[in-house]
Amino acid sequence: MPQGQPTTVPDDGLTTRQRRNRPLLLVHTGAGKGKSTAAFGLALRAWNQGWPVGVFQFVKSAKWRVGEERALKVLGDSGEGGTVAWHKMGEGWSWIQRDPDAVQDSEEAAREGWEQVKRDLAAETYKLYVLDEFMYPLKWGWIPVDEVVSVLRERPGAQHVVVTGRNAPEALVELADLVTDMSKVKHPMDAGQKGQRGIEW
Amino acid sequence: MPQGQPTTVPDDGLTTRQRRNRPLLLVHTGAGKGKSTAAFGLALRAWNQGWPVGVFQFVKSAKWRVGEERALKVLGDSGEGGTVAWHKMGEGWSWIQRDPDAVQDSEEAAREGWEQVKRDLAAETYKLYVLDEFMYPLKWGWIPVDEVVSVLRERPGAQHVVVTGRNAPEALVELADLVTDMSKVKHPMDAGQKGQRGIEW
Repeated sequence: MPQGQPTTVPDDGLTTRQRRNRPLLLVHTGAGKGKSTAAFGLALRAWNQGWPVGVFQFVKSAKWRVGEERALKVLGDSGEGGTVAWHKMGEGWSWIQRDPDAVQDSEEAAREGWEQVKRDLAAETYKLYVLDEFMYPLKWGWIPVDEVVSVLRERPGAQHVVVTGRNAPEALVELADLVTDMSKVKHPMDAGQKGQRGIEW
Repeated sequence: MPQGQPTTVPDDGLTTRQRRNRPLLLVHTGAGKGKSTAAFGLALRAWNQGWPVGVFQFVKSAKWRVGEERALKVLGDSGEGGTVAWHKMGEGWSWIQRDPDAVQDSEEAAREGWEQVKRDLAAETYKLYVLDEFMYPLKWGWIPVDEVVSVLRERPGAQHVVVTGRNAPEALVELADLVTDMSKVKHPMDAGQKGQRGIEW
């Protein structure tokens, strides 16, 4: 929607340009498909702008999103757009120097991922952060929602963040600039279809 | 969801393998963000499988999805995955030999796009088709919904099709294997924010 026009003009003391460049927090939630897929589609736009993109996958299986990961790595390595750093909890976070097999505890691993997100936000490492399936550690209480809201609210510079996963906490929805709920209308698994290569992964 | 399990086993005479490889029709609809973005995210997976991907953009502006287009072209040209053919109504369909400026009529242009989709489906040119913003010509009666449903139902081989746009016709939803409704919970334009580079395009 390049030519989209706002429906109101806010009285926030910002110029249109300042407002336009305001860093955004996006939330993709709901029980349907497309939450993460749309986040990686967004990463294509960021790449095209030459932005450094950081992906943090808060999932146990290292096999998730292999297609998106490979595509974004090829793009990042092409030198024609931004860089892409892809961090996977499932195979042990890349910045941890110890044996990846040593990280067995999902709670510890999820917290360690969040600590790195905090460090990168403070250092302004990326211009787009994809926190994929980040709602799970929030839901399970492994990472305090209050802390996440506070860190994201106070993040410096112009860093955009997209968070995906079902059951987004209300406080995160409140803080977010854009929230999309993906709801399932119909899914092939309901009709006995297994997930298939190229479509589901 | 690589390890997703179906909730029922259908009595359709197909083996699990046949059912797994059944070509899918996916519909991304609703008033929220992410319909097209998720479709292009899906194209990343198809590319990773080495599939030929065909994108047909049924939008007037040639500037839409420039980030996704460039990313998918770089991927298609990389030789590391499938090929990507990107067709844009907005700048005159690439297979039309006449002066692009001659195509001023959106209805004619949309129909011509659909005729090419039909030819490509018959020839099994691609393994994934993205029919982006295809609901508009259907809604406006430029392309008969009955014909679209019939062509998609009868398409040969193992060709997956994803159709995006608001207001999916009921007959298309009925035919589809997977339907996701993206609904808007909150959008920055509501708060006076204009669309921004790298996020909206």
